[in-house]
Amino acid sequence: MASNLLCKLKRSVSAASLRSYLAEFISTFLFVFAAVGSAISARMAMSGPGAPAPDATSSAGASAASDAASLVATAVAQAFGLFGAVLIAADVSGGHANPAVTFAFAIGGHIGVPTAVFYWASQMLASVFACLVLHYISAGQAVPTTRINVHMTGFGAAIIEAFLTFMLVYTVHVAGDLRAAAGGKRGFAATALGALAVGMVAGALVLSAGPMTGASMNPARSFGPAVVSGDYKNQAVYWAGPMIGAAVAALAHQILVGPPDAVAAAAQSSSRHGNVETVVV
Amino acid sequence: MASNLLCKLKRSVSAASLRSYLAEFISTFLFVFAAVGSAISARMAMSGPGAPAPDATSSAGASAASDAASLVATAVAQAFGLFGAVLIAADVSGGHANPAVTFAFAIGGHIGVPTAVFYWASQMLASVFACLVLHYISAGQAVPTTRINVHMTGFGAAIIEAFLTFMLVYTVHVAGDLRAAAGGKRGFAATALGALAVGMVAGALVLSAGPMTGASMNPARSFGPAVVSGDYKNQAVYWAGPMIGAAVAALAHQILVGPPDAVAAAAQSSSRHGNVETVVV
Amino acid sequence: MASNLLCKLKRSVSAASLRSYLAEFISTFLFVFAAVGSAISARMAMSGPGAPAPDATSSAGASAASDAASLVATAVAQAFGLFGAVLIAADVSGGHANPAVTFAFAIGGHIGVPTAVFYWASQMLASVFACLVLHYISAGQAVPTTRINVHMTGFGAAIIEAFLTFMLVYTVHVAGDLRAAAGGKRGFAATALGALAVGMVAGALVLSAGPMTGASMNPARSFGPAVVSGDYKNQAVYWAGPMIGAAVAALAHQILVGPPDAVAAAAQSSSRHGNVETVVV
Amino acid sequence: MASNLLCKLKRSVSAASLRSYLAEFISTFLFVFAAVGSAISARMAMSGPGAPAPDATSSAGASAASDAASLVATAVAQAFGLFGAVLIAADVSGGHANPAVTFAFAIGGHIGVPTAVFYWASQMLASVFACLVLHYISAGQAVPTTRINVHMTGFGAAIIEAFLTFMLVYTVHVAGDLRAAAGGKRGFAATALGALAVGMVAGALVLSAGPMTGASMNPARSFGPAVVSGDYKNQAVYWAGPMIGAAVAALAHQILVGPPDAVAAAAQSSSRHGNVETVVV
Repeated sequence: MASNLLCKLKRSVSAASLRSYLAEFISTFLFVFAAVGSAISARMAMSGPGAPAPDATSSAGASAASDAASLVATAVAQAFGLFGAVLIAADVSGGHANPAVTFAFAIGGHIGVPTAVFYWASQMLASVFACLVLHYISAGQAVPTTRINVHMTGFGAAIIEAFLTFMLVYTVHVAGDLRAAAGGKRGFAATALGALAVGMVAGALVLSAGPMTGASMNPARSFGPAVVSGDYKNQAVYWAGPMIGAAVAALAHQILVGPPDAVAAAAQSSSRHGNVETVVV
Repeated sequence: MASNLLCKLKRSVSAASLRSYLAEFISTFLFVFAAVGSAISARMAMSGPGAPAPDATSSAGASAASDAASLVATAVAQAFGLFGAVLIAADVSGGHANPAVTFAFAIGGHIGVPTAVFYWASQMLASVFACLVLHYISAGQAVPTTRINVHMTGFGAAIIEAFLTFMLVYTVHVAGDLRAAAGGKRGFAATALGALAVGMVAGALVLSAGPMTGASMNPARSFGPAVVSGDYKNQAVYWAGPMIGAAVAALAHQILVGPPDAVAAAAQSSSRHGNVETVVV
Repeated sequence: MASNLLCKLKRSVSAASLRSYLAEFISTFLFVFAAVGSAISARMAMSGPGAPAPDATSSAGASAASDAASLVATAVAQAFGLFGAVLIAADVSGGHANPAVTFAFAIGGHIGVPTAVFYWASQMLASVFACLVLHYISAGQAVPTTRINVHMTGFGAAIIEAFLTFMLVYTVHVAGDLRAAAGGKRGFAATALGALAVGMVAGALVLSAGPMTGASMNPARSFGPAVVSGDYKNQAVYWAGPMIGAAVAALAHQILVGPPDAVAAAAQSSSRHGNVETVVV
Repeated sequence: MASNLLCKLKRSVSAASLRSYLAEFISTFLFVFAAVGSAISARMAMSGPGAPAPDATSSAGASAASDAASLVATAVAQAFGLFGAVLIAADVSGGHANPAVTFAFAIGGHIGVPTAVFYWASQMLASVFACLVLHYISAGQAVPTTRINVHMTGFGAAIIEAFLTFMLVYTVHVAGDLRAAAGGKRGFAATALGALAVGMVAGALVLSAGPMTGASMNPARSFGPAVVSGDYKNQAVYWAGPMIGAAVAALAHQILVGPPDAVAAAAQSSSRHGNVETVVV
């Protein structure tokens, strides 16, 4: 048992695996930079280029989406950014860019638990690094955290996040599954269109629930701003909600389209998670 | 005759069919959540995060799109959301997410009438459930219904909805037909691009006529908010208009590209409506 | 000579050709409805749902894009709408939806002159019909015409329209040429992506020059609103500019990628202009 | 050594190469027209169609994105415009439209240094020409330059530009590499989706950092407005930042997905840089 775990752990630090973690780092960096950067930029645009830099402590609580145009700005940034983030890492690490997605694939047996833990670490480090870059270099702007609307309870917010993440991760599964099903061979077009669907569904959901909970759907996206701003309030909501939604999505997808048969699963693991195939349990 | 109907009815409750209904449920839930949620969120964004929650009764009449930025927000949410909704159910149920689309396919003989009725039930239940989730969990926000501009008559609104739905459902037919025509084999790329076209045409039409009638083009999208808000005004408009437009679109498509020949029809029914092929009349 | 023309004319009224004209009608209707409808809707959204209907004569001069959010609304509507318009007619008529595009294909010899004239008639009728539907049914809203900025001359506006149309029609040629070049066989994915590129380039150009000239790039798009509003001012600008730009684009494309060889040309005419292949000169 | 350089130089002026330079010119013209034109148009839209033309000297310093809706307008224009720009030149010149991209491909050995220099010249000439067209024809509007937020240092801006360009050029490499990897044969769908990803990532990054540095990521995009407005301030930032970011992206891509093997490289050079294959070093 212990040697089995050790064996898995060993595989998790191969050269191919290290490339996967680096790909997840770049991918998550791009997504979090787009999500958090667009919230900062929309705020800067509204206050004008000549306005004084907002005080890092007092305005940290300002909503990232304080009017409809800012909501569109951050939703489009997340849609386009997640499209790119999923695509650029798709053939190296699977293009998760989201601990909840990694969790769903771990539950489904597509990725080993030790590898998933390293994925999570990469994703969270990338998120913190993206927020640090945005904070220290961009004139000391406060990094906006994902926040729950004042009229909403933490429990309600977690349920919304679970519903949102369910829809996002279900889309991720359809995109991945159909790709693998197409003769076991996946072209760039299918990968790109799957990534586009994931990005655009995320954008639609940010537009739907952004002013309610921030529409995080991604623990890493909430973790970085919390670390950099030092405001860890409601982190439990942004971890529990997405994880539950992702797990239910993985289950629902298996019920609706059936479990992947051996051939498709093999094709998927060798094509989707190219460099990490040896670490799949 | 009665036994024939009973036989069809029996096929409509097979395991494959139940999966189709569940897929329509998830698909319609995603679309209605995006459409109605974005209208609520745009309103919340405009009034600011610290504003009091609007009273559920008095503001039910507020327009979902009260300025151009809110119009863009809800149109983009519907474009991206419908893209995802059509895509995630495409290989299980055909990805209708709209009773008017189901009606058009029933007229064209692509789907049996009993199955169509179950599709409708799934779609309407999903819409009501999406609106309930948005209402009870999101700080008791009023659920905005699709509304007719005060300067417009119900008859005029029904005609606009018919025109809008004609364009949407014609696009649905082109997307479906071309897919099947490509050698009887449909890849993920064609499915995704067809879904993208359907979503983006819907977005363009919401931008064109949103402030006139709400640009519903989808009885389920209007039904859920009506049930949850208790305001059934103009429901007839949102059922008659889209149904007529969808029927004319099915007819126009047959005239323009000719009736599907036997091979293409068989390929379509077996590929597009994968799990429901046994229930096609 | 006369009999040759008669022969060509005869081919132009075959059943296949009539289908092409009907396809161009639907396609242009969708695009003009999106372009003009979004301008009306953005104006309605800005003035609020309860505001009095603007007087049809006095506000006809109001700009269709009176702030940045309205500009985004109409640009996105045109991008998404043109994507759909080109796609739904692509396999029947080639999906022009624009007299300038038809002109460029006539210059390049891809379509006969008599057929081109019927295409133009369909496109202009569709534009007028779309504007009539928008005007008479939508509470008597004034139909906004494409207008030249007060600081600009008609000559300058024609040059801008020529530059804009050059870029749009060059994109149309690349999309069409690459499709045909792919083994002489064009799948739905290539058609859809070509249409997407055409739509999105149009959207980018509306964002670039909308407040300058309206960024028409399409005589039909300017003709319908002029007829319905009775304001034919600057029609010469919206015909001369796009036609010149389209002609230069056809020429530039031939220089850059070489004239289509016989095989590719045959493949293109039989696949792109499916129903009109017998009328190609 | 000298004769070697002369030989390379000679190849750089072949007919195929001249076509490449012309393709880069058109491609960069389209992108810069969209980027700069949308900034001018958003400003015109905000001030209304009847407002006096802004004085060319005093308002040159006005931010191109003075509110969230303008930020969305210019980001979407760049996303859609870059998609088109990359696509229309992809099969002739590779579709760079950006000196930093050309630099990255020169570092990677995909394009010879003399050819790269001609690419740069084409790109910069195109940018200046696009800005001249926008300036002289559009009622003498001031051409907005990319500007650094007043709270930011030039060094910080260069670092942001480097990060932004890293993400953009990494995406360019993934799009190009995966295309070539698909059996050595690249279809229109893969080219178009790669171009779409590049455009959308650019759009996301403009939304993320537009109000900080203008999110140029492209020395040509900053060079044209500087020449036309006569304001060369911070040009060093807009050259150094992107070049460093592009170089690191080329390196990171080689580390993550390995160096292209001989077969893929040959396939890439013959398919991606069709007309310039003879000038590759």
